[in-house]
Amino acid sequence: MSQSKSSGGNFLEDFSAGQILEHATPRTVTAGDVALYTALYGSRFALQSSEIFAQSCGLHQAPLDDWLVFHIVFGKTVPDISLNAVANLGYAEGRFGVPVYAGDTLRAVSEVIGIKENSNGKTGVVYVRTRGLNQNHQEVLSYVRWVMVRKRDEASVIEASPPPVLAGHVAHESILSRSVPDFSNFDCGLSGEPHRWDDYEVGEKIDHMDGMTIEEAEHQLATRLYQNTARVHFNQFAESEGRFGKRLIYGGHVISLARSLSFNGLANAVKVVALNGGRHVAPLFAGDTVFAWSAVQDKAEIAGRDDAGLLRLRMIATKDLPCATFPESDDGKGVILDLDMWVAVPR
Amino acid sequence: MSQSKSSGGNFLEDFSAGQILEHATPRTVTAGDVALYTALYGSRFALQSSEIFAQSCGLHQAPLDDWLVFHIVFGKTVPDISLNAVANLGYAEGRFGVPVYAGDTLRAVSEVIGIKENSNGKTGVVYVRTRGLNQNHQEVLSYVRWVMVRKRDEASVIEASPPPVLAGHVAHESILSRSVPDFSNFDCGLSGEPHRWDDYEVGEKIDHMDGMTIEEAEHQLATRLYQNTARVHFNQFAESEGRFGKRLIYGGHVISLARSLSFNGLANAVKVVALNGGRHVAPLFAGDTVFAWSAVQDKAEIAGRDDAGLLRLRMIATKDLPCATFPESDDGKGVILDLDMWVAVPR
Amino acid sequence: MSQSKSSGGNFLEDFSAGQILEHATPRTVTAGDVALYTALYGSRFALQSSEIFAQSCGLHQAPLDDWLVFHIVFGKTVPDISLNAVANLGYAEGRFGVPVYAGDTLRAVSEVIGIKENSNGKTGVVYVRTRGLNQNHQEVLSYVRWVMVRKRDEASVIEASPPPVLAGHVAHESILSRSVPDFSNFDCGLSGEPHRWDDYEVGEKIDHMDGMTIEEAEHQLATRLYQNTARVHFNQFAESEGRFGKRLIYGGHVISLARSLSFNGLANAVKVVALNGGRHVAPLFAGDTVFAWSAVQDKAEIAGRDDAGLLRLRMIATKDLPCATFPESDDGKGVILDLDMWVAVPR
Repeated sequence: MSQSKSSGGNFLEDFSAGQILEHATPRTVTAGDVALYTALYGSRFALQSSEIFAQSCGLHQAPLDDWLVFHIVFGKTVPDISLNAVANLGYAEGRFGVPVYAGDTLRAVSEVIGIKENSNGKTGVVYVRTRGLNQNHQEVLSYVRWVMVRKRDEASVIEASPPPVLAGHVAHESILSRSVPDFSNFDCGLSGEPHRWDDYEVGEKIDHMDGMTIEEAEHQLATRLYQNTARVHFNQFAESEGRFGKRLIYGGHVISLARSLSFNGLANAVKVVALNGGRHVAPLFAGDTVFAWSAVQDKAEIAGRDDAGLLRLRMIATKDLPCATFPESDDGKGVILDLDMWVAVPR
Repeated sequence: MSQSKSSGGNFLEDFSAGQILEHATPRTVTAGDVALYTALYGSRFALQSSEIFAQSCGLHQAPLDDWLVFHIVFGKTVPDISLNAVANLGYAEGRFGVPVYAGDTLRAVSEVIGIKENSNGKTGVVYVRTRGLNQNHQEVLSYVRWVMVRKRDEASVIEASPPPVLAGHVAHESILSRSVPDFSNFDCGLSGEPHRWDDYEVGEKIDHMDGMTIEEAEHQLATRLYQNTARVHFNQFAESEGRFGKRLIYGGHVISLARSLSFNGLANAVKVVALNGGRHVAPLFAGDTVFAWSAVQDKAEIAGRDDAGLLRLRMIATKDLPCATFPESDDGKGVILDLDMWVAVPR
Repeated sequence: MSQSKSSGGNFLEDFSAGQILEHATPRTVTAGDVALYTALYGSRFALQSSEIFAQSCGLHQAPLDDWLVFHIVFGKTVPDISLNAVANLGYAEGRFGVPVYAGDTLRAVSEVIGIKENSNGKTGVVYVRTRGLNQNHQEVLSYVRWVMVRKRDEASVIEASPPPVLAGHVAHESILSRSVPDFSNFDCGLSGEPHRWDDYEVGEKIDHMDGMTIEEAEHQLATRLYQNTARVHFNQFAESEGRFGKRLIYGGHVISLARSLSFNGLANAVKVVALNGGRHVAPLFAGDTVFAWSAVQDKAEIAGRDDAGLLRLRMIATKDLPCATFPESDDGKGVILDLDMWVAVPR
């Protein structure tokens, strides 16, 4: 009898600095994925919702939502990187590349860029840089993330390899003009709000007001759509004996929910161009209601463009806590997500 | 700091007679929306289910379900019209126009056609005529609805504007022949039932027999698919303190469920051509089981057509109440929907 | 008043040997169905997931998952065959024919091949051979199933017609080479696992390790997507008084869940070619967690092909019972599905 063909995933011992992981399974994205994304989050950004609006912005068809692209690329990395992860610790240096359209086929490749063991001898942290590529080998996304991973054997000796120094945020000068659609003909009547780049001020806070309660079926459908196999999201039999006694919701589900809620006040922030950083502050469970608010942290022009500008947004999501008072991560219970990103807005 | 960018929706004071509301966000409908609609309701009408059947009826591809079109158009109006609605009171003068196909881009425009304040001084009723348009500016749907809306300030003086007199039902003579597909080659073997127009009698009642229990995840997925943002459907945190203590299901979800159940007995009523009127008699909640029955209220020929005729149907939906005894709205508890429409049936 | 137009389905008295049932409703399958299938099961087999991978296997686009085809064909037969079924007893002689692509239109035809009354005088068993056909009248699937059906009237006399002798399994020599894609360029890096046909041994057992907990909304969405109208899956109002007090999950949902879990260890078994037999050993309910394991029962070459070989797999699914110890159907509680099939694997 040969050794079992199935795999329990990689442990800390299985990673080495410089290692390249070509992730399975390539995935052709379709209008079906787009419809499900709308049904899961209720997203209403005009660029992604309407072929005609997208064409008025110089694209040949409506692009997929940036976070849908993120989730699909991320999902591919899970079987190799985070099946035995204890926690998804952070993101940095995220950039969205060429637009993704229905019909494109995506795959993902990661490089291990750092490993360190925790002092408890049971776990460690693995840093990877992941790239999402389309069928033409163009980069659709790249980002760094670091995860806490279990050791297979506590007695193992781990060769540490400190990660390269990561940028605190993506420099706005490095954001390519071509990653921002043409907003010269942007129709604020159709997009839903009149606010343009000049209307936003650094320091401004926006309560997105609405709340959305999550059901088990919803986050499971979403996470499977992304072909993300992390066990904690699906297996109540095992999780009933686990840390929380229940299934944990994929952190990316929270990002997309908050992003969709943020339409109310940021309807014209139709394009995410960079993920500066982010932290899943606390776990989310079915039955919780998600709220969100955003702060404008910075503004930047795009060289040579008078149709579009950049906003650096901090987007905070909470559970069972409305955001009229703009709760912070350190305020105590309630905050579940603290995300830092650059978005493009018409001028 | 500028004023908050997010919006809490319009109140009674924000409406004025003759006001035109161009609703955001345009939406390209796709095969993904169609598949979700099937998954949400289990609809089996042959015209919408099969490209080949649709082609045999003279259409170049399968049209979207009429109620899917209705929900998408309706959803666009919610942020402007009914975000602060207390109740959706009624519909009239609804007409389905040119067929909608996957790939079409829909938008919605409403005109305020009447306003009146309620005697309690806290709420009022707003009447709007909404039109759904495709990318070629063709009308896909128009209907009147009236909603009870809260005043922002009880002290406000509201300028009343009584609505135009609304037709009790759409006159069958006004239904355009071209809104009914060609049923000359209608295959009753494939469609599921042998009953043709001549087989239905005025006064006939049909128990649709089956029941369907609704889950929170299902109605939330549906309502988000329609980009309908009405808060009562999604926010358990807020609704737990609300009138019912739980999330209220979008009334349109009930229409589609009843319509799908009505396949059993009305399989050949493949095309809805007019919405004469309708009333959401009582609210529906997750966990309830929906049943339905229909009565043939009237029959009409279509001038110049011997392949198709019209049936005026009253469709009643109930919760936790099977319909073998044809329960009426006034019978006490149980009825949740009372809808009046014209449908086209092969002769 | 004419007789009611709606139908309660066929009873044992309504079947006769040799009877041909042309099932409604034809169904055009789309990328939307594929996306929902991914969301419902998290399937990751490369052949179905990627257009480009499929093209590298000689297909012009990614085919639909074999079990999605099965469920859609099966669903069409329910209103005619199993609406009054007490139990779905077994399958035999199942063959998957030409690949099904998004855009194809499927229909189903069944022939009654055997009837026998049970000794209790209340029920009987009906055997049917069902064929699924595409728009070009090509067979996409055929299989025999037998179901226990209620009699309308216990006093009825049933004319028995014993079924033809059914093959214990599909002979591998009869599996057509053209039903297996070209695996000459099969990329095991992209597909997710290195194991090829030669690596599997007869008698080998594979624990698929992961578990998935099922929600009511999920199985209802799935079963409606397949336009399967069997009442026991949807109507809690009726089922609360029924045999189990709750909704019963469509057995095909279990097949697809187990198949998706089986990716872990059988990632390269991308094509199901035959269903030798199968039994739903016990019912599944919402809240249960499904696990699965497989055994390699036999191996066979395909005449004239050195790129692909066949594995005969027994796939067992359990509920609330991890499969590290490979539980058998006779071991007592836990096993819910015992399926026997041929799959094609690259050499």
